[in-house]
Amino acid sequence: MIPRYSRPDMVAIWSPETKFRIWYEIEAHACDAQAKLGVIPSESAAAVWKAKDVEFDVARIDEIEAVTKHDVIAFLTHLAEIIGNDEARFVHQGMTSSDVLDTTFNVQLVRAADLLLADMDALLDALKRRAMEHKFTIRMGRSHGIHAEPTTMGLTLARFYAEMARNRDRLVAARAEVATGAISGAVGTFANIDPEVEEHVCAQMGLQPEPISTQVIPRDRHAMFFATLGVIASSVENIAIEIRHMQRTEVLEAEEFFSKGQKGSSAMPHKRNPVLTENLTGLARLVRMAVVPAMENVALWHERDISHSSVERMIGPDATVTLDFALARLTGVIDKLVVYPDHMMTNMNKFRGLIHSQRVLLALTQAGVSRETAYTLVQRNAMKVWEHGADFLDELLADADVRAALSEEAIRSKFDLEYHTKHVETIFARVFGA
Amino acid sequence: MIPRYSRPDMVAIWSPETKFRIWYEIEAHACDAQAKLGVIPSESAAAVWKAKDVEFDVARIDEIEAVTKHDVIAFLTHLAEIIGNDEARFVHQGMTSSDVLDTTFNVQLVRAADLLLADMDALLDALKRRAMEHKFTIRMGRSHGIHAEPTTMGLTLARFYAEMARNRDRLVAARAEVATGAISGAVGTFANIDPEVEEHVCAQMGLQPEPISTQVIPRDRHAMFFATLGVIASSVENIAIEIRHMQRTEVLEAEEFFSKGQKGSSAMPHKRNPVLTENLTGLARLVRMAVVPAMENVALWHERDISHSSVERMIGPDATVTLDFALARLTGVIDKLVVYPDHMMTNMNKFRGLIHSQRVLLALTQAGVSRETAYTLVQRNAMKVWEHGADFLDELLADADVRAALSEEAIRSKFDLEYHTKHVETIFARVFGA
Amino acid sequence: MIPRYSRPDMVAIWSPETKFRIWYEIEAHACDAQAKLGVIPSESAAAVWKAKDVEFDVARIDEIEAVTKHDVIAFLTHLAEIIGNDEARFVHQGMTSSDVLDTTFNVQLVRAADLLLADMDALLDALKRRAMEHKFTIRMGRSHGIHAEPTTMGLTLARFYAEMARNRDRLVAARAEVATGAISGAVGTFANIDPEVEEHVCAQMGLQPEPISTQVIPRDRHAMFFATLGVIASSVENIAIEIRHMQRTEVLEAEEFFSKGQKGSSAMPHKRNPVLTENLTGLARLVRMAVVPAMENVALWHERDISHSSVERMIGPDATVTLDFALARLTGVIDKLVVYPDHMMTNMNKFRGLIHSQRVLLALTQAGVSRETAYTLVQRNAMKVWEHGADFLDELLADADVRAALSEEAIRSKFDLEYHTKHVETIFARVFGA
Amino acid sequence: MIPRYSRPDMVAIWSPETKFRIWYEIEAHACDAQAKLGVIPSESAAAVWKAKDVEFDVARIDEIEAVTKHDVIAFLTHLAEIIGNDEARFVHQGMTSSDVLDTTFNVQLVRAADLLLADMDALLDALKRRAMEHKFTIRMGRSHGIHAEPTTMGLTLARFYAEMARNRDRLVAARAEVATGAISGAVGTFANIDPEVEEHVCAQMGLQPEPISTQVIPRDRHAMFFATLGVIASSVENIAIEIRHMQRTEVLEAEEFFSKGQKGSSAMPHKRNPVLTENLTGLARLVRMAVVPAMENVALWHERDISHSSVERMIGPDATVTLDFALARLTGVIDKLVVYPDHMMTNMNKFRGLIHSQRVLLALTQAGVSRETAYTLVQRNAMKVWEHGADFLDELLADADVRAALSEEAIRSKFDLEYHTKHVETIFARVFGA
Repeated sequence: MIPRYSRPDMVAIWSPETKFRIWYEIEAHACDAQAKLGVIPSESAAAVWKAKDVEFDVARIDEIEAVTKHDVIAFLTHLAEIIGNDEARFVHQGMTSSDVLDTTFNVQLVRAADLLLADMDALLDALKRRAMEHKFTIRMGRSHGIHAEPTTMGLTLARFYAEMARNRDRLVAARAEVATGAISGAVGTFANIDPEVEEHVCAQMGLQPEPISTQVIPRDRHAMFFATLGVIASSVENIAIEIRHMQRTEVLEAEEFFSKGQKGSSAMPHKRNPVLTENLTGLARLVRMAVVPAMENVALWHERDISHSSVERMIGPDATVTLDFALARLTGVIDKLVVYPDHMMTNMNKFRGLIHSQRVLLALTQAGVSRETAYTLVQRNAMKVWEHGADFLDELLADADVRAALSEEAIRSKFDLEYHTKHVETIFARVFGA
Repeated sequence: MIPRYSRPDMVAIWSPETKFRIWYEIEAHACDAQAKLGVIPSESAAAVWKAKDVEFDVARIDEIEAVTKHDVIAFLTHLAEIIGNDEARFVHQGMTSSDVLDTTFNVQLVRAADLLLADMDALLDALKRRAMEHKFTIRMGRSHGIHAEPTTMGLTLARFYAEMARNRDRLVAARAEVATGAISGAVGTFANIDPEVEEHVCAQMGLQPEPISTQVIPRDRHAMFFATLGVIASSVENIAIEIRHMQRTEVLEAEEFFSKGQKGSSAMPHKRNPVLTENLTGLARLVRMAVVPAMENVALWHERDISHSSVERMIGPDATVTLDFALARLTGVIDKLVVYPDHMMTNMNKFRGLIHSQRVLLALTQAGVSRETAYTLVQRNAMKVWEHGADFLDELLADADVRAALSEEAIRSKFDLEYHTKHVETIFARVFGA
Repeated sequence: MIPRYSRPDMVAIWSPETKFRIWYEIEAHACDAQAKLGVIPSESAAAVWKAKDVEFDVARIDEIEAVTKHDVIAFLTHLAEIIGNDEARFVHQGMTSSDVLDTTFNVQLVRAADLLLADMDALLDALKRRAMEHKFTIRMGRSHGIHAEPTTMGLTLARFYAEMARNRDRLVAARAEVATGAISGAVGTFANIDPEVEEHVCAQMGLQPEPISTQVIPRDRHAMFFATLGVIASSVENIAIEIRHMQRTEVLEAEEFFSKGQKGSSAMPHKRNPVLTENLTGLARLVRMAVVPAMENVALWHERDISHSSVERMIGPDATVTLDFALARLTGVIDKLVVYPDHMMTNMNKFRGLIHSQRVLLALTQAGVSRETAYTLVQRNAMKVWEHGADFLDELLADADVRAALSEEAIRSKFDLEYHTKHVETIFARVFGA
Repeated sequence: MIPRYSRPDMVAIWSPETKFRIWYEIEAHACDAQAKLGVIPSESAAAVWKAKDVEFDVARIDEIEAVTKHDVIAFLTHLAEIIGNDEARFVHQGMTSSDVLDTTFNVQLVRAADLLLADMDALLDALKRRAMEHKFTIRMGRSHGIHAEPTTMGLTLARFYAEMARNRDRLVAARAEVATGAISGAVGTFANIDPEVEEHVCAQMGLQPEPISTQVIPRDRHAMFFATLGVIASSVENIAIEIRHMQRTEVLEAEEFFSKGQKGSSAMPHKRNPVLTENLTGLARLVRMAVVPAMENVALWHERDISHSSVERMIGPDATVTLDFALARLTGVIDKLVVYPDHMMTNMNKFRGLIHSQRVLLALTQAGVSRETAYTLVQRNAMKVWEHGADFLDELLADADVRAALSEEAIRSKFDLEYHTKHVETIFARVFGA
């Protein structure tokens, strides 16, 4: 997590202030439940809420931790400084540090997921708007980087929309994976704390009780969460790569918006580089690198070990902050993408008429020519275009074998671009609804 | 995929025979749909079914491919050899190779997922059965590898059950991710093929039509699929690590079943090594290694490139075959795991009474001792056990400060093991249902 | 490891036949050393060499292993079947299975490294030859995919040469990493076997004795080996990506060689796709996926566990076979790459004269114009080229502010392409030697 | 990079202040070289050194960058503010941003490597000292987590020493990989800058000139660098896992030093958890996660793209800071590790005499018993120890078949522990030198 690739709302989720605030809420709600169960005095539970509006002193807590080398004890000591040692006596009773830490981590991940979902909604909006705008903007479809058959810019954007909509669904599922809390005490047996405390705290914090925890919430949940972020990041890369290709000098079908003050290069003033999508390509790698360690975190020793903790301190903020930034940046890129329909048409005509070869091939087959022969007929004329810059239509019209099978009109009819867009509406209906 | 870690049913899904069979079915169903649309003659479509019971000649297809360097064309050529060039003329019309290849890959992944789901059901059964058997088999709970408080072997197995049940749900979702097909023609525009063909073929093959494809089915779906396998493998590792710990000489709370003919070591005949779970630890790494390349496969150039193909030829079979083998092996391990309840009890008593320290701490707090003081009282007696092998109960009873707060009876009552199992039923109900 | 991406020499290294042959040699050499030390009878040692020319019966060994569930014991049993139980009595004395297995694995990796080094030599030859051929073939240099300043195709190939030469050095180092053997007995203490046995066996097998082993050879060596393969694979990807870019329709500065019988697409016969380099992009991902599991293999429990074994059974063959195939394929691609110097020149002129902007900027600065002003002057003329297809030279000549600083001759002199190639020889001398 | 896992010297390398300082030095040295070549006025070059002792104003540079969106231009603008626009006119002439950025990154990596080398030296010292101390401290050697044969704590530490010494050599090689600089101008042709500038700057900055750069230094170098850090981290994990095993309650052969004020658990005061080595296990995952993105960074488009940049901004600091912290932490753990030789002996005797089975097996073989029979004889007595807690020596002495082959004295002699340590000196000499 570095400022350059961070946005404040996501950063705030991971601040010490937020963390201590969540710790406090968990402890306070647990006291309420314990009081209701008659385990601790009601007044003690009530007293904890005295700190309701307190901003905890992060520096002071750090100071205590430097001595105790234990963060939760440090926080509880500081809390006692605020509400009084006597009232604080029953705080945390029957709980372990992990009850607080793990539940807090999940609260943070859930909040992070909520921000990411909002990011994705904005991205989906932008993709949809631009897809609609360019529904029938014809451009070359390419397989292997080679011209294939025409498609439209709208279809390109629609497929990114569909991919991101799938990612949104995955993120909703990933959010549910980590939306659990555990207040189950040492090794998770509830020996020293009633399950009702967990139920109450979870309900208050917007979580489900973890059905079976072992002092820690099982880490397969988090592995799934970070794996999902990795998939989303890979889709970000997918869109970024498309735009980088579109912007390369020889293609130039689109460009990232280039503001007036911006300088592309200290040496070559004419250059307009797709730096945002290049950056997104790198950010995708960064989000993805959390996936393997998150999976390595699953196999903890016995009821728990603490090896996952350092990993999560890093990847929790890093992966969510970076993905949040990336999604927002991508939304901006899509929103303001400068599209050049005329360049798209110019590119399509680079090999004069050649993109219609598939249709001619089919026409020949349907006219009774064997598949192999048809292939040969098309290929020999195509090669003239490819190698000598001939016009494909002219060559076909001049090829006696082709003409033996197809009339001039039949051949000419195969060079109609609208033929390729006839199902755009069908596909849009599938993607965006009727 | 190596024979040592393979089972035949999963291997069969990835055989050339199965692949060509699926290709054939897709082509034949497509012909039916094309005939119904009037695009090709009904007799031609019907003729394709002449090959219905043919075993395709893999060697012959390979031979043709050696010339054409194109696998689908090689297959179609071979198919024409069987049903006749004339009848074969309309096969594959308007389609691209990817229509066949991608739909086939997804059929294979769906079938693989079905086998894996069956594997997981067997594993869940074994885990549940053994969990019930050892519901109240008390053993030491450990955090950081250090004795913490008692738990039960049943809870250990129940948490693995819960984790694998989550994995089953994830796998159902992952199966749905890849249960799509595409027959959308070059660059996915349906220019040369009606969407109804896709609908018909998908329905016949048990798939959903891909809402928007671009000659290829988008690879974020597969990234999610393999990521899910990676999470499942991490859970396999989690269980394997637990058993390896239980079997280590100093712990010896359980052992993998050791058949009569088996030799543990060429040098040390007394050794019984947890080789199955060690093996599972390695297999988990192997399944997991598919995750990153599957994510790197998402960003294809424009409408498609073929870089994903070699990756999938390897990880498709490897990850599913290895995970299938691992799940079956793990099921066997769980099913026949030799559990030693008496060793569990012996281990628990290693530090005489020390595991009850938490309860004593709470009792002191509840008796009005401040948290800090109670902590000190417990710690000073605990250290005598730790360092000099004293008996914790004796020390507490002899500690005047402790006795000032708690009666002998009160102290003794804290050394009751059943205290720790009182919520086992609660947790089992959460995991297995009431 | 799949046949499609395999070459026979590398596959042979990993065959059961080779493996058993190496096992045999290790055991036989160990017997020699033991006999020399007087530990076993000389005749027994000599008898082992009776099997010198025997092809071991893999099926028979598998059969025995099915009973014993231990591969080395199975092999030794089979060996005894060949040389006689009596003579076989002293074979493997004082050794453990790992002595044989680990030393064998390293012999295989060393042989694999030797093949890979030969592959790299062939690749370096091809790169050098083509670099020399195109030393002064001018093409556009691009940063961010955007035209920057001219370079040459020779420089492109020379940088790949330099990168692969570095990789060759790395591979030599990686080979040395794994060129160790261990015959140190149970837990590596030499309690039951003299270190001289290890020395003798290693010398005979072309290895160094592992200074300290613990029944296994430490796995940091293998982690380094596979990490190095991962770096080499990433360089393969780097070259592949360059060629894919060069072949894309709008660029078309080079093409993979396209043989006569080859068909590019079942649907679009004119297409010539960079399928080899796309394939290499995928193969790079496959080689790279071995890196993380190899690193996860380092942390074995105590003196050894067997978790690394399944990983190595897979990645040992897979990573080396795939990389061998990839290097050979890449060599073929480079060797036969069809280069289009005229297209390179056409692309360079896409924005008429704009590539010389940097030189004009410098000339202005040197003529006393402030950096900021010079930048503005260049940029305003550059934008006319960019946006309206103007000729950069014409625009500059017509710009009074530019002309106030630079004469017509001075401006024209900045449009000379050879200016950019003046240090090509310097760089070639650095890369290939004087 | 988070404060909790950071040390100030390494953090300082990555501060904006250090970065700008290196940028400045590169620009100033380049001016010197340009002046010497007569390209720029000597006075201008001299003027740049006016800023020699200036602390650059990071906030001001950020402010400028917010407008220009280009960091190097922002810095140059700020530099001009300090030394005067007129004098600054020739700064950066003929260079590109990447000349500065890439050379700077490598300077930082080299400095980071130097710190890491110092860390490793300290670690090696600690390992050696403790290895010498426990050279003959006998402990159980374990394979598969199961008791095998005796070894010594010194050997354990010596193998970690040997592994880390290898890692030190690797790091020296990795440092050399990135110890290059490039001042080669746009797309690396030296068209606008003489190679002598690069030579001068590199010599001044302690680097070698990159033989062929393309505006960027090739990223295979950095991939190798981070891969090496990943291997080192895996070795850190290896040592950490060993200590965690030793500290687990049932083993308790060693403990991390536990300071007086430290609290192990908020709930269980007697617990002393191996939290440092658990933490190191997690930190190893964090360092390792940089490896794959660093490899993905190798394949940049054409002469360069900027996708690597965001990755390096994160993993450059993160991986080096985390590894620096981890190595220092590990050194502290080793340095102060509390070793329990008596517990080691107690553990060894858990299965009374069983660890000597291998020696008895060999003795039987040497006494003329067939290998198979000897194995059976040993195994049947071993099983009595294993299953019924018998004493292995007693059982053997009472076994008529064993006694038929071996005298009582012969059997008793096999139960001598020093037998296992007879080559400790040999191994120590190999590892630490004679």
